[in-house]
Amino acid sequence: MPHDVALVERTLSEARQAVLGELERLFAERRRTGYGPLYDLLADYPFREGKGLRPAICFAACRAAGGRTEQALLSATALELFHNAFLVHDDIEDASEFRRGRVTMARQQGVPIAINVGDATNVLAIEPLLGNTERIGVRKALLVFREVERMARESAEGQAIELSWIANESFDLADRDYVRMAYKKTCWYTVIAPLRIGAICGSAPGPLAPLDEDLLVLVKLGFYAGIAFQIHDDLLNLMADETLYGKEIGGDLREGKRTVMLLHFIRTAPAAERERALTILRQPRARKSSEDVTWLRESMERNGSIAYGRKVAIEYTRRALEVDAGGIPLFGQNEDRRFLREMLNYVIDRIK
Amino acid sequence: MPHDVALVERTLSEARQAVLGELERLFAERRRTGYGPLYDLLADYPFREGKGLRPAICFAACRAAGGRTEQALLSATALELFHNAFLVHDDIEDASEFRRGRVTMARQQGVPIAINVGDATNVLAIEPLLGNTERIGVRKALLVFREVERMARESAEGQAIELSWIANESFDLADRDYVRMAYKKTCWYTVIAPLRIGAICGSAPGPLAPLDEDLLVLVKLGFYAGIAFQIHDDLLNLMADETLYGKEIGGDLREGKRTVMLLHFIRTAPAAERERALTILRQPRARKSSEDVTWLRESMERNGSIAYGRKVAIEYTRRALEVDAGGIPLFGQNEDRRFLREMLNYVIDRIK
Repeated sequence: MPHDVALVERTLSEARQAVLGELERLFAERRRTGYGPLYDLLADYPFREGKGLRPAICFAACRAAGGRTEQALLSATALELFHNAFLVHDDIEDASEFRRGRVTMARQQGVPIAINVGDATNVLAIEPLLGNTERIGVRKALLVFREVERMARESAEGQAIELSWIANESFDLADRDYVRMAYKKTCWYTVIAPLRIGAICGSAPGPLAPLDEDLLVLVKLGFYAGIAFQIHDDLLNLMADETLYGKEIGGDLREGKRTVMLLHFIRTAPAAERERALTILRQPRARKSSEDVTWLRESMERNGSIAYGRKVAIEYTRRALEVDAGGIPLFGQNEDRRFLREMLNYVIDRIK
Repeated sequence: MPHDVALVERTLSEARQAVLGELERLFAERRRTGYGPLYDLLADYPFREGKGLRPAICFAACRAAGGRTEQALLSATALELFHNAFLVHDDIEDASEFRRGRVTMARQQGVPIAINVGDATNVLAIEPLLGNTERIGVRKALLVFREVERMARESAEGQAIELSWIANESFDLADRDYVRMAYKKTCWYTVIAPLRIGAICGSAPGPLAPLDEDLLVLVKLGFYAGIAFQIHDDLLNLMADETLYGKEIGGDLREGKRTVMLLHFIRTAPAAERERALTILRQPRARKSSEDVTWLRESMERNGSIAYGRKVAIEYTRRALEVDAGGIPLFGQNEDRRFLREMLNYVIDRIK
């Protein structure tokens, strides 16, 4: 398969820089007019080293649709803020310890302040969306608002499904349960909304463009790509080097996070191993020992559950590439079109 | 002073009914198309018996400005949802036990689910705001969005100030510190934004109306009225009958909430009482005994701190009535104009 790592890494880094510049301006303004100490806390997560995936996808979709980066800049900045707000709350909900190589907001400031920081970050994201009315016109600005509403709604529903599994101690779940949850929780936030919003910002002006049908294929593309990304991320959590990954390795196992790999293990492991795994998983996080986590990871490996996860991730990437090859009406054939395809290949190649 | 309790209570009840009807429709739609169990949780707080204060103010301002209730219906519904989202998170941040006569969302469902319910409630509020583009036109719909952004931002900043007092164990605070915090945390949410949004929805159509200057006096009116309401609410928490009030009485003292009354006591009590009070207040909620709370309340009474709070609340209501008497350019002289004034008198009369 074609593979241009340099293109992918350059595009990610440029997107990140553009959004950070915009965030600097936004934070300076808020610190000047509002209660400063709050904005110092808000700036923490967005300025930690992230991948810049969502802005990069949003900009690339904008340019692939014929637009310029500036047309998507405020939207991409809002997406990055919503994403960070989501992470601050998600880290409380999952009782996570680390995020991007440092302790989570909740561990640093306590749960009450962390909840408020997440809420304030969501509010901060509204400002650039209102700025869109001047940047890309009222009609497109309102279309972007609709996408954001959908994205945030799907995400909250996906989160609700996952939290209900935790509350009910459900582990007997099929891949389709996982896929439905991740479609809502991850795909909309990470791929579908960035693609659709970028396409809206970059599309030719006109009373009707972009058409609903033209945007529909991006749900399909983003769905397959998003599931592949998520499984890839979950594989990284099981396998990667802690210093590179930024979260504690095996943290997902400590949290009892339902991944394709864990669910496969629960479905297919020998009865005794399955029972031991469930006993470990039902322990609160702090009561899971390192030995338990190591045993679980090694048993999953031995059982072929990690190989199974890799296979599923590759299959979803293949489907995404297929949708992509089928043609995307809104997108021209240019460097940014190529970036979106290379991103998919990049993920496949990095699957460990 | 003039006083028409029947008018106030009828207006509150009508507003509440109108918004509940709209909420029913919104929830039915989301349950049909989304993940149903999430919306069952979301419906909990809004359908508990509340005062309906914000919608009533919003509708009255709309009609006082010459509009019809329907023009403010979607905005008032959004305000009610934002308010409920705020309460769900506020109850976690304050570790509150009861809300509107029943246990809080967090005590019922755990913190992770409660955080997500608050987030999803905020998202649900965006839908009626987008519906405003058809109901009152794009220009006014965007003005309402700006008001909502400001309201949510002020509120998060006010919350941040209050949470910083808790984190730093600050009790040496002047009335002006309290007033700044409550202006941000309470006044915008409860009075200023409902007034301004109602006025925007109901004002005559036109490329410029309502003018920024015309809306400015509503900040002043809402500021004085909001502070009066908040002190009144804090007095109720100290004094009222638990079954009528819906929260545990003295809950504010258990939480160590900085009220005008408590801050006055800390500033003016004899040294030994002040030290005993600070020792009690610095205990975690669960370690405060009923005897401690009773002693604190009785000492505040004896020290004149509760009378002082009453005096400050009445003074702020007087200032609000003064602004009102000075004239509000956007508002005509009608029944709704009278309701807004009666609301202020109603509060004074209920101060215990």
